Order: sequence, then C-alpha cells, then structure tokens
Amino acid sequence: MQKIKFETDYQEGASPEVLKLLTSTNLEQTSGYGEDPHTSRAKDLIRREIGMPDSAVYFMAGGTQTNTTVIKHLLSPCEGVIAVSTGHINVHESGAIEATGHKVIALEGHDGLLDAEDLRTYMEAFNADPTNEHMVQPGMVYVSYSSELGTLYTKKGLSAIKKVCEDYGLKLFVDGARIGTAVTSEASDMSMKDIAGLCDAFYIGGTKNGALLGEAVVFPQPETVKLKQFTTLIKQQGGLLAKGRLLGIQFEALFEDGLFYRNAKHANSQAMKIKRAFTEKGITFLIDSPTNQQFPILTRQQNETLSEKFSYESWQPLKDGRLAVRFCTSWATTDDNINELIEAIRRL
Amino acid sequence: MQKIKFETDYQEGASPEVLKLLTSTNLEQTSGYGEDPHTSRAKDLIRREIGMPDSAVYFMAGGTQTNTTVIKHLLSPCEGVIAVSTGHINVHESGAIEATGHKVIALEGHDGLLDAEDLRTYMEAFNADPTNEHMVQPGMVYVSYSSELGTLYTKKGLSAIKKVCEDYGLKLFVDGARIGTAVTSEASDMSMKDIAGLCDAFYIGGTKNGALLGEAVVFPQPETVKLKQFTTLIKQQGGLLAKGRLLGIQFEALFEDGLFYRNAKHANSQAMKIKRAFTEKGITFLIDSPTNQQFPILTRQQNETLSEKFSYESWQPLKDGRLAVRFCTSWATTDDNINELIEAIRRL
Amino acid sequence: MQKIKFETDYQEGASPEVLKLLTSTNLEQTSGYGEDPHTSRAKDLIRREIGMPDSAVYFMAGGTQTNTTVIKHLLSPCEGVIAVSTGHINVHESGAIEATGHKVIALEGHDGLLDAEDLRTYMEAFNADPTNEHMVQPGMVYVSYSSELGTLYTKKGLSAIKKVCEDYGLKLFVDGARIGTAVTSEASDMSMKDIAGLCDAFYIGGTKNGALLGEAVVFPQPETVKLKQFTTLIKQQGGLLAKGRLLGIQFEALFEDGLFYRNAKHANSQAMKIKRAFTEKGITFLIDSPTNQQFPILTRQQNETLSEKFSYESWQPLKDGRLAVRFCTSWATTDDNINELIEAIRRL
Amino acid sequence: MQKIKFETDYQEGASPEVLKLLTSTNLEQTSGYGEDPHTSRAKDLIRREIGMPDSAVYFMAGGTQTNTTVIKHLLSPCEGVIAVSTGHINVHESGAIEATGHKVIALEGHDGLLDAEDLRTYMEAFNADPTNEHMVQPGMVYVSYSSELGTLYTKKGLSAIKKVCEDYGLKLFVDGARIGTAVTSEASDMSMKDIAGLCDAFYIGGTKNGALLGEAVVFPQPETVKLKQFTTLIKQQGGLLAKGRLLGIQFEALFEDGLFYRNAKHANSQAMKIKRAFTEKGITFLIDSPTNQQFPILTRQQNETLSEKFSYESWQPLKDGRLAVRFCTSWATTDDNINELIEAIRRL
Repeated sequence: MQKIKFETDYQEGASPEVLKLLTSTNLEQTSGYGEDPHTSRAKDLIRREIGMPDSAVYFMAGGTQTNTTVIKHLLSPCEGVIAVSTGHINVHESGAIEATGHKVIALEGHDGLLDAEDLRTYMEAFNADPTNEHMVQPGMVYVSYSSELGTLYTKKGLSAIKKVCEDYGLKLFVDGARIGTAVTSEASDMSMKDIAGLCDAFYIGGTKNGALLGEAVVFPQPETVKLKQFTTLIKQQGGLLAKGRLLGIQFEALFEDGLFYRNAKHANSQAMKIKRAFTEKGITFLIDSPTNQQFPILTRQQNETLSEKFSYESWQPLKDGRLAVRFCTSWATTDDNINELIEAIRRL
Repeated sequence: MQKIKFETDYQEGASPEVLKLLTSTNLEQTSGYGEDPHTSRAKDLIRREIGMPDSAVYFMAGGTQTNTTVIKHLLSPCEGVIAVSTGHINVHESGAIEATGHKVIALEGHDGLLDAEDLRTYMEAFNADPTNEHMVQPGMVYVSYSSELGTLYTKKGLSAIKKVCEDYGLKLFVDGARIGTAVTSEASDMSMKDIAGLCDAFYIGGTKNGALLGEAVVFPQPETVKLKQFTTLIKQQGGLLAKGRLLGIQFEALFEDGLFYRNAKHANSQAMKIKRAFTEKGITFLIDSPTNQQFPILTRQQNETLSEKFSYESWQPLKDGRLAVRFCTSWATTDDNINELIEAIRRL
Repeated sequence: MQKIKFETDYQEGASPEVLKLLTSTNLEQTSGYGEDPHTSRAKDLIRREIGMPDSAVYFMAGGTQTNTTVIKHLLSPCEGVIAVSTGHINVHESGAIEATGHKVIALEGHDGLLDAEDLRTYMEAFNADPTNEHMVQPGMVYVSYSSELGTLYTKKGLSAIKKVCEDYGLKLFVDGARIGTAVTSEASDMSMKDIAGLCDAFYIGGTKNGALLGEAVVFPQPETVKLKQFTTLIKQQGGLLAKGRLLGIQFEALFEDGLFYRNAKHANSQAMKIKRAFTEKGITFLIDSPTNQQFPILTRQQNETLSEKFSYESWQPLKDGRLAVRFCTSWATTDDNINELIEAIRRL
Repeated sequence: MQKIKFETDYQEGASPEVLKLLTSTNLEQTSGYGEDPHTSRAKDLIRREIGMPDSAVYFMAGGTQTNTTVIKHLLSPCEGVIAVSTGHINVHESGAIEATGHKVIALEGHDGLLDAEDLRTYMEAFNADPTNEHMVQPGMVYVSYSSELGTLYTKKGLSAIKKVCEDYGLKLFVDGARIGTAVTSEASDMSMKDIAGLCDAFYIGGTKNGALLGEAVVFPQPETVKLKQFTTLIKQQGGLLAKGRLLGIQFEALFEDGLFYRNAKHANSQAMKIKRAFTEKGITFLIDSPTNQQFPILTRQQNETLSEKFSYESWQPLKDGRLAVRFCTSWATTDDNINELIEAIRRL
C-alpha cells in the first residue's frame, strides 16, 4: 500500500484549471520561445497583479535556474550574493551559483530569515576591512519569501533590509518559489505588490502552487537592471523553452481569476489543520511556521508510528534523540488525507 | 487572419496521447525530481527500445540544457568540443557551452554534416603542432542527427567518425533533438539502436516530436563515463525539474506503443508532400533534405506571394537575390494546412 | 621619515643569492615556458628534497593562481573544496575558486586549523543527508601549513585529516605559501617530505621566503591525479610565464644548498625575538604562533605609540577596545629593525 | 654544442638596466600588491608617454592573464569577443577566454589583420539575423599590434575598425604584447599615444621587450569602463603579485629614459638584417613582416642545413613541401649571432 505523502508541495501534477487550459489551447499554432499571445497575456496579468504596468516579466522552468540566471545577470564578476546559511542557493542548488562564478556569502539566519542588523554589521565590517579589495565584493542580498523554514519577513523587516541595501549599493532579490503560500498566510502583512515595491527582482513560484512547472521573474524597475540581453542569458543558462507557451498558458490560468491565491490558501489552510492537531497533542515544533511547511518534533516512537502510513521529510535530528520532520501541504492536499493524518496524530 | 505556420516543429502543444496521460495521472502522488514510477518506466521503455538494458537514461527539459550538461560532464577543464560551424552549439545556444568554460572548435561541414576525413585531418594537424600544449585540447565530437539542415549521416559516415574518435581518444556525442524524424526518414539507414552503439552519449528529442518539452539523454555504456554525480550536475545546470514526472510521463506516452515513431513519420510524410510540390513547380532547394525541414529557394515574388498566407523561416539570402527559406513540419501538421500550401505552391 | 615595516613577508625583493643567479644567467638562451635547464634542475632539487624522485613539480607565479589551478584540476564540476572559514581561499582570493565554478565549503577552524574530527562529523552528516544529491559534493580538503594565523598542524593532526580524506574519498591539498617558516619552526614535527607523504598536492612558497615570486607545486604521486593536461591548465589560468626560467632559476638558488631553510629560520628567529619582547612586557597574544607571524594584542595607547615608528597590520578589534595586530618577519628582516622594535616595546 | 636560438623573443632574461634597478632597490621596504612608489612612478611614466594623465594603468604578469582579465572585465555574460582566427586568444591561450565564459568569435584575417569591412559585414549580418537573440552578442573587438604574423595596422585601418566599433557599440581592445617592435617599426605610422586614442584598453608588453615579465594595461578613458573592481578582478584571476613592485620597477626602468624604444628598435634592426639576407638569397617569405618576426619559406634542404646550427620555429608546412619558419629577434639578439646566421644564409 502506498503511503499518503506529505513530503513536499510538488508531488502531484497541475491544478485542473491549468491542465484544462493547456488542453484547450493545445493545437493552436504559436511562435516559439515565449513569443506567443498566451505568454503576453500572462505577463500582462502579472503586471496588473502587482500594479506595475512597466515592470518586466520573464518565465523560466524552475527555481534553481531562475536564481542562477537572475543572480548572474545582476552581479559583476567580482561580486557575491549574501544569503542566510540555510538559504536554498547556499545549500540545495548543487553549487549552481558558484558554477556561474559567484560566491554565496552566508550569514547566520534567525529561523531562516536574514536580520537587517546582521546585514548592516556585516557590511560595516566589510567596508572597514583594509584588505577588502582582495575579497569577494558583496553585490546583492538574496532572501526567500517564505523562507526554507516556512517563516515570513514582516514588511518592516524586509524594508529594513532594503534600507541597508540602498545604503551600501546592494541589489535585493526575493526568491518567491513559495510566494503564494507566503502572501496568503494569515501571518503575512505583505502582498506581491509590496514585495515588488521593495526589491530589484523577485519571482512568483508556479511549480509549488499549481503549475506543472514554471516561475515568473519580475523586474519591477526594468530600466535599472539593463535587461537588454536577459533573454539571451536565459537561453545561455538553458532556461528558454522552445514551447515557451507552456509557461505562459499556465500562468494565464493561475492569474486569470485568482486561482494562484485560492491554491495557496488551500495549502495554508490544510497546513494549519496539521499544526493544530500536533499542538493539541502537545507536540512542539522546530519553528513556528505560518505557511504550508510544518516542522513538528517527534519522538522516535511517534516517528515510527506515523511513518507506517504517511511519508514526510526527515529534517533535523535533535540532540535529545527526537527528530524534527517536515509535513508539507499544497493546492492538491485533500481533506481525506488531512483527516487520516489528524486521526493518526490523535492516536499517537 | 492568422497565417498558417510552418516556421518550426514546436509551434503546437503536445500529442493528444501525451496530454491524456498527463491528465489521467495528474493527481497521483509521487516523489519529486524524477524519483517516480512513470520516470522509471519511461527509462525502461527507452532501454528496451535501444536494446541496452544497462544503459543510463536521464530526462532534461530542453536541448541547450542537455547539450551543455552532457558536454560539461564529459570534458575536462582544458578540453573543447568539435562541431561543424553550423552546429547548434556553435551558433544558436547563446554561448552556453563557452559559459561552462569550454571552447567549441568549429570545423567546416558539408551540408551540415561533419566529414570523418576532415576530422582526421584536423586531429593529425593538432597532434603534429608543437605548440598544441597551449591550445584547447579536443576532447569530444558533437554531431546532430538530423543536422541543422535536415541532412542525415549514413551508418558508414558516422562509423567513420567513431573510428577517428577511437583513434584519438575523443568522446562522441549525438544531438538527437530531431532524432525521431531522422531515424524514420526513408533515407535513414540507422535506428536509435545503431546510434546508441556508436556513441558515448546521445539524446532523444521529445520537444520537437510530440512532447510539451523534454529530452532523454542516454549513455549507452554508463560505466565508461563516471555518472555518479550526473544528477547533481543536472541540478547545478538548472535542469532538474521538481515535478520530474512531467518528463517521465511524456516519454512513457511516446514510447509505450510507438507514438514517437508515428509522430515522426507523420512529420516526414507531410514534409515530403511539400518537397514534391516545390519540385514539381521547378523550384530548387538549398539542400536535399530527407527529413521534416525543407529549404526551397524562392524568388522575391514567390516569397511575397507565399508569405501572405503562410509563415516560415527566412534562412539565407542568396547572392542572386533569391532567398532560401525553411518550411518545417511536425507531428501536428494537418492535411488541411499541407493542402492549402500545396495549392499555393502550384499557383506560384 | 618612512616607518619600519613589519606588515608582511613580501615587502622586500629577493634574497641576494637569488638575484645573483638571475644576473649571472641573464644572457643564457633558453626555451620558454619552463622548458629550460634551470627549471629542470630546480625540479630535480625539489624532488631530491622530498625524497620522491617520481613526483611531478610545476612552478607558478603566485599563491592564488596556484590554489585556483590545483583545485580546478583536482575537482570535478559538482565538487567543492573544504577549508576552514579563515582559509585564504575562503577570504582573501577575491572569489577565485568560485570563479572556476567551485564552492568553498567553510568549516569552523581552531586557531586557523582544521580539526579532523570536525571534518569527519561534517562528512558523516553529509553522507547521512538524504538530500545530498542536490548539494555540492565535497571533493577535497584544503589546509595551510602554516595557517593564516601562523599555527601549525602536528603530524598526528594532519595524519588524522588524511585518514578522513581516505575514508571519504577526498583529495588533500596543502597550501604551503609559508611552508618554509612552518617546517623550520621549532614547534614543527614535519618536514616537507612528511607533508609530501600525506597529501595529493602541496606547494612550496617562494614569494614569502626569498624569491621575487614563485610557488612550486608538487604532486607526490603524479599517476593518481591525471596530470596530462596540467601545463595546458596552467596556461589557461594565465599562470604559464613565457620566461618560465625566472621561476626555475630562483628555486634553483633556493634549494641548491639550503638557502630556503636558512631564509625561513632567520624569519622565525626574528619573530621569536619580537614574541619574547612582547611577552616580557606582559602583552598577550591573540594566538600562540610559533612562526613568522605574531599577533600581539595592543591597547589603544600602545598601538598609537608603536605605530608612530613602525607599520604592521591591524588584524582584529577586540570587544574590550584593544586591537590584535600582526607583526610579520621574513628572510629580510634586519637585526637593526628588530632591535629598534624591541626597544620600542620595552618603552611602552 | 648548443644551437643559436632565434625561436622567440623571450629566450633571455631582462635588459641589464632592468636587472640593475631590481638589484639596487632590492632591500627597500615597500607595501605589497603594487602599492609602492616604484609602481606609482612607472604608472606616471606611462601616462606621460601616452599623453593621457587621467588614464588608468595596471601591471600584470603575462599576456594570457592580461587578455583574460581585460576581456572578462569589459564583457557582460552574454557577450563574445571578435578576433581574427589566427588571433592569440583564439589559438594559443588554451581556451582561457572561454574558461571565463566568453566565446571568441573568429573572423578570417588578412595576413593576421582584421579588416574593418569584414567586421562591418559581420555586424550587419548579425543585426539582420532574426535569430540573433539566441546567439552570443558581439561585445568587443580584439586586435594585436603587431599581429601574430608580425604585421601592422595602419592608423587608417585601425581608425576604420574603431569607427565600426562605435557604430555598433563594441569595445576595442589592443593586445600590445609586441607593441614595442610595432611602434618602432619603420613601417608604423602609429605611436602608443595614437593607439591609446583609438581604443578602450590596450597593453604594453614588457615580457617580450626587456622585462623578466610584465604587461602594462592602459585604460585611456577609465571613467567609461567602470574600473572600481578591477584590482579585485586581477586578484581573482590570479594576476596580482604580492611583490607588485617587481613589475613597477621594471617598467620604471623601461620608460625612465627610452629603454623600451631602444630595445624594440634593436630587435627590429636585427630582424631587418635577417630579412635582407634571405631576400638577397632569393628566399621568399610567407608574409612581408616589418617587425621582429620574420617568416622565410625554406626548402627541406635549406631547413636541414640551417637547423644544424640554429633553432627557430616551424610555422607552417606548404603544399609544395617547403616549410615556412619563424626567426624572431629581440632586445637581446647579438650582432655575433646575427652575423653567424647571415653567413649561414649566404652559404645555403
């Protein structure tokens, strides 16, 4: 019998609405590489969404590809990108950033989040260091919204980071692989428009929120980031799909009438049910996440019992022998599966 | 009114059978990154197809990504890859190969094909050059089947190239973005099994033959090419899809019962109708292509007339004022569109 | 009036014996790129020195160049190099390692040294991490002898690191930019021969020990590290000098009759005088260094007084307001300058 | 008996005046990395030489290093550098340019020189190509003065190239590894000042004209090329010497009172004697070079006879069985050796 999977938010296909639009448009003839009407329309929908009609939008196939291409575009050869040590680019992209020649400068995070004061302290020390001409020059700050640990920047927190970036000439890039569940979280005080107003680039993750694949990169002020060769760079990085419309059509479906938000809210709502069940059982969490990733700490026995029927990710062994694990929900998480899980938690 | 498009072989979505399987499997829960049963099954089908049960198969999203990753994997830092000057990696990949640090060593081709004797002459000269320690070391030969000009290697021709590769310690890599229309062409004397037997790596193009996207890389003798870190490299190059099953399911559909070949045969058959129509009209070709790309040479008047109703690619202006153009067919090219085109050709 | 400089060990030219040999051989005609008799002789002298007649020796112009080239040679594209966070490659090489595509994996050091147990713990955790296929693969350990803080590995300590490397398939590379003062330190229990016996590659720093420039890279077991294209790689990295003999002649002078060791002993001896003077004054050190770099901790007043007449490096501000500084000696440090400094310390 | 060598212009050490200054300054204490008074002075002398007091000057160790660093600095990630197919960066730098991620776009040269009209034709075709967004973007033109074949651009020719660069937004970079013998050739109508006025960057080769090693990079209009991080880039590329004064002192000696020009004139004068001797013997040349490289075409018998006593480079076998060879002179070529060679030529 197959276990019920709560491993991650990309274990099913696509939202039915997405598949439906792919199917209904399947035999239309369009030009390749995103030069098609669906892609144009999807870009317009996103521009409308963030209220920035002049912003530049590009579609790419996945997160690592997007991070690599944007960072390569925005940095000069001697520059590195600052991220928290748990940041996706620092840990789980197989050195993709370094493969383009740039160092990831890791600062310690707090529950997955970068603190503006830590950033300022780092930049002050860097600037005060008389040997800094022999060091990688900090050129950009990379943050994720939500973070790898499901946590969220507040508007105040991200604004403070932005301020440090301005003070020190750093670009700010927001990885939004999970921006859907972030902005729809009850704990969030930022919309995508807010994010757009605070950064030099961000992306809207489709893969983890109802698309088969696809991320939408947004440069809110395109005139400041010399995008002339950006399509060529996407091609160079292997990210330009021949059937570019595959991405455009999906984002069209996601942003036509709010599917993107409905998907994300569903994921969050299912996650909160899990969170409540663990809490009611007296099980604590590695971190207090308000989004679709939950990190309860299980005893060995609890873990053995739950893993008989459910699969989820081992996250971090604790020194006391317990194990922090990750349960992840998505647009596709069914009530049946949630209920089975809740029952099992109650029986622990 | 929209023109009928013969621009390329990726202007529609996917074969209905492919979409159907994507739809029917949509809510299955599977692990990410290609660790799912559909991907496993698709790999098995491909191994069966080429009669090499021990070969290694990987799925990637597109051609440039595949070329870059395979070449980066197979070369050491000082090595370059030999290709004909019209080769896709030398012209239309935005310098993706160089972006990984490797030179493309361009030799003149003949109708898009590399001649084994030219290759041998180059290698002899390289080895005789006393300054060659200061030069990029040739490490691999890259050929396309079919070529950028729709032409085909004979088994004898490719075997001769293989022989030179063996004599000089070069890897041989076959870009099969259009391998479907290649092996099903009436002019072909090679199967995919033959290709697999002659090279160190090749790939089977899905994007241009019925998939939404996807290429299947095959290493026929995996033990000779140290694949231990190849998945990590795919990830580093931004080519590892979270929903890896998107590729596996499509190749499952393509190779379950021969859809891949039916698609390709259809494309070739439609192309031959176009070829015949031009020929009967007395219009000549830039090249005698036996596959789904056709390169008739049009007068300015003919071009103006045809382009009123049809779109196709400008390929190469000739010195006499005429223009070589490209008409491309695919699995999706309808009889109606072909017939309209043929009528138009006849009326020229 | 110019201050007396104790900033670093490369503030003068070359040992007189080195200059003399450069001058006496100046008009000899030799082939370029290190294909000259002096370079051959120097290689033989080094092989003799380490008692490994089959080892491979190459000369390069500087430390960053050497680190970059050796690491690029020994790693495959997905691999990174482990170093302590204070390691030269992690801090002061402007991202040169990352510029070749490889991540520096930073572990916390202890007084500049890597602990074998920390390394083992890291490797165990890496191997136990189910997501490690998406991570940079550890491929090599980089240590410096002496370290950036002037400290030394014991033979036992380096052997323990070597053991972990063998257990986990890691290469071991020793940066010997200051290997001269390391092996001649009274605290050292390793010779260059010992180092050679423990690593896959190391280099002998000339720049900081009497040469105008130059580092000698040694691969003790050349058959294990595929050196066929290494000269080509040096050229690719911009490190192959046209007048390669400039390096060969200098190492010939350094290893002809022990000048290399005499130079280093002189540097250490002068450093110990400084160390004693500070100690006698009751001034403590950031670290207990047995080599030519000394790190006393000065009060603001002491620093102001000393810096009137002497220049040295600010190293690290302490929380109590004091400043750790670095005094560095070399083959060229005169007794007069040492005596003036000692007097000044006594007067503090 | 050792043969008399005419292989290249870097087979001896340094001009005696250079060695003398290195020796007399040897024990001066200076800061590292080129932050010393000799380096400052050398920069001033070069600025004075080209009459551009605001130009930026940097010293690097060798030609490949310099080419790589300047090109990496001036190009963005999608851009390539145009060079003639015989250009040093295209042939003899082991793929160093590609190793930084940039394609060398090779155009056919004429006797080693790029023709402005060929360049314009290439740029027109590139701009007219509807697929050029998928191609490496031409960003820079690289020329050598003198060329690999010893030939020279006229001021008119280089100005025409500059005009095309301006028309198409390309940077112009002049490799001056042999600029000394170029500007002092009787056939030259350009000074270094002229070169500086026509390009975005060039360098003055010391290695081949009297220095042990060293090239002086000049950016005539530093404000146009964002040099802020250039020293960091030199460090990243492994080109920043700890004892940077080694370069500064040598250029000081070369430009103090015209030694650079005297050296070059001597080389040219000796070369012209060789040229005359071959000409008088009725031996023709592969190319009519007015500088210190001469390319006579020898019969097999002539080659055998000359090579008994002299060594020189085999350059290119001709189809008729003869061999084009290269004789190279330098500042160090003695009258005795020239006379012996002339005698031998006469006896052929």
